[in-house]
Amino acid sequence: MTELNPIQTIRILTTGGTIEKSYCEEEGTLRNRASIIRDGLIASLRLPYTHLELDSVLNKDSLEMDDADRQLIADAVSRTAAKGDPIVVLHGTDTMANTADYCFAKLGTPPVAVVFTGAMKPMGFIDSDARQNVTEALLAARLLQPGFYIAFHNRVFPIPGAHKNRETGTFEAVAGSG
Amino acid sequence: MTELNPIQTIRILTTGGTIEKSYCEEEGTLRNRASIIRDGLIASLRLPYTHLELDSVLNKDSLEMDDADRQLIADAVSRTAAKGDPIVVLHGTDTMANTADYCFAKLGTPPVAVVFTGAMKPMGFIDSDARQNVTEALLAARLLQPGFYIAFHNRVFPIPGAHKNRETGTFEAVAGSG
Amino acid sequence: MTELNPIQTIRILTTGGTIEKSYCEEEGTLRNRASIIRDGLIASLRLPYTHLELDSVLNKDSLEMDDADRQLIADAVSRTAAKGDPIVVLHGTDTMANTADYCFAKLGTPPVAVVFTGAMKPMGFIDSDARQNVTEALLAARLLQPGFYIAFHNRVFPIPGAHKNRETGTFEAVAGSG
Amino acid sequence: MTELNPIQTIRILTTGGTIEKSYCEEEGTLRNRASIIRDGLIASLRLPYTHLELDSVLNKDSLEMDDADRQLIADAVSRTAAKGDPIVVLHGTDTMANTADYCFAKLGTPPVAVVFTGAMKPMGFIDSDARQNVTEALLAARLLQPGFYIAFHNRVFPIPGAHKNRETGTFEAVAGSG
Repeated sequence: MTELNPIQTIRILTTGGTIEKSYCEEEGTLRNRASIIRDGLIASLRLPYTHLELDSVLNKDSLEMDDADRQLIADAVSRTAAKGDPIVVLHGTDTMANTADYCFAKLGTPPVAVVFTGAMKPMGFIDSDARQNVTEALLAARLLQPGFYIAFHNRVFPIPGAHKNRETGTFEAVAGSG
Repeated sequence: MTELNPIQTIRILTTGGTIEKSYCEEEGTLRNRASIIRDGLIASLRLPYTHLELDSVLNKDSLEMDDADRQLIADAVSRTAAKGDPIVVLHGTDTMANTADYCFAKLGTPPVAVVFTGAMKPMGFIDSDARQNVTEALLAARLLQPGFYIAFHNRVFPIPGAHKNRETGTFEAVAGSG
Repeated sequence: MTELNPIQTIRILTTGGTIEKSYCEEEGTLRNRASIIRDGLIASLRLPYTHLELDSVLNKDSLEMDDADRQLIADAVSRTAAKGDPIVVLHGTDTMANTADYCFAKLGTPPVAVVFTGAMKPMGFIDSDARQNVTEALLAARLLQPGFYIAFHNRVFPIPGAHKNRETGTFEAVAGSG
Repeated sequence: MTELNPIQTIRILTTGGTIEKSYCEEEGTLRNRASIIRDGLIASLRLPYTHLELDSVLNKDSLEMDDADRQLIADAVSRTAAKGDPIVVLHGTDTMANTADYCFAKLGTPPVAVVFTGAMKPMGFIDSDARQNVTEALLAARLLQPGFYIAFHNRVFPIPGAHKNRETGTFEAVAGSG
């Protein structure tokens, strides 16, 4: 039965972003601290045939990322993709498409599916979209051919080819190559 | 922009099952009544480029379904698939694979993706797997080629080829053609 | 500071009832099994100056209780009240007033506040009233004079003097002595 | 039955504070905007014999309040208390005791119970203490004699006589008169 029902490893790279902002009661602040996705979200999913490996690359609001940060992420993606398992990258939405485009420009088509996702509302909120988006990204990472993608709000966008629409608070396909 | 970002219709057929069991406070009973997925689950998902059409075929525990019920479901799938949009079928887990196999035996490969899903725990519970499974099924319905599938706990199974493992409380791939 | 801010012990006696019904995924049944309030509800409350002691007397739907069960509960209340700390009794709503009246008839006014509560919907449901009622009962147990009470839906009823209104799904005061 | 089971009016004065901070997805900020307690929290409580009247006095982080703000709150309490119904005041925790003490110093013992509460974590978070504290404050407002109080984390403190312990993130009784 092991061949029919193998455990699939998916590697999650965390970079910060709204999805992982957490609230500090002492300070009264909401911001990126350590990665909280394991206890805060993954523990509530049922993943009997999936093994997740988490690796924290950065803990930044994506508006504060520069190309040095993007290079760090591209390096981590390149290094991790060499292991042969699909990848999910958690990232702030504001510059997610920029980072995904950057990775594609630097790395070309990777040897595995690399799916970026994040959330409009931090995962600790009752009505956060984090759980939906992570659930989608994990499934997309299993189903898709090698390449860069964004999974968000029941859509999957090939990269390049997507951007955030700030007015509607979601991602859209764009013409041309991003 | 309408071509780049079209609204995708997905048609949901509800048949009952654990996922849609609801609690009646007067009776103190948990069972299939009317479909509750719209207010109980779909309302909490963000689906800006997805239009859902719901149609209630049955409201039964799947252990109580017989081949007459399966034929009703196959008829509904056939009629609905003719509209050209992907389909999600909510179904009890105990005989979900049987119904999916039955549909395949009667209808062959359908003209659209038809994705069965359900839940081990009714959607009203805090720790239900309903939201995860429905999120996965809705994405799978968008991504997959025409055919019958089961989406469950971060996996997608082509039909025939899956069954429920009652001991572990999830679905598995099986050898042969189901 | 220990005198100003003592840790208050509250003793919780569990007897079953809708509030503690739990769902078994293998069987697909919702019923009273072991007490689940510690992990299922109390863990989510903030009780920095409260120490809870739990004791499981019964695990029954209150419609199935008879006077032998009521005597067991009265005995447990009597034995526990002798320790001098306020008591919360978790009980099914259908015969909660009967059991509370029975305890009063057998024991008269106890030496501590004894507050019965329960829920219309099991604590595992997203929209259960269990957390509200337990929060109220724990506070009422701290604030009230010795005596029997029911705390439910933002009201506290002295016992005797309350019954369940099955049509409205809540408790009411009744004339006379119950 | 109207005499036995009257509808109790409780008047809620909102002033802002952590409890009512809400997240704006466009700005990515968490702060006091309009009062959100009606839809965000009260709608989830069962209050069959309670009528709530909400009045928004301020929408401020309590660290930003000065004595002019405290006078506004004292005026609102005085005006509202004259209606004869118990009052709950939602307030930031950092200066809640200061405002409560201020009200007592200006107004003396009010003609009704006036119960201050708030939360360490905004009500929109899954693990917020807002629902517990508001549930407690609403019950305390029904049960207590006229006077000023703070209700928090299963305790009720007469005012003056309480302060926030910033290290432990809860309220404590203090010696003397506050």
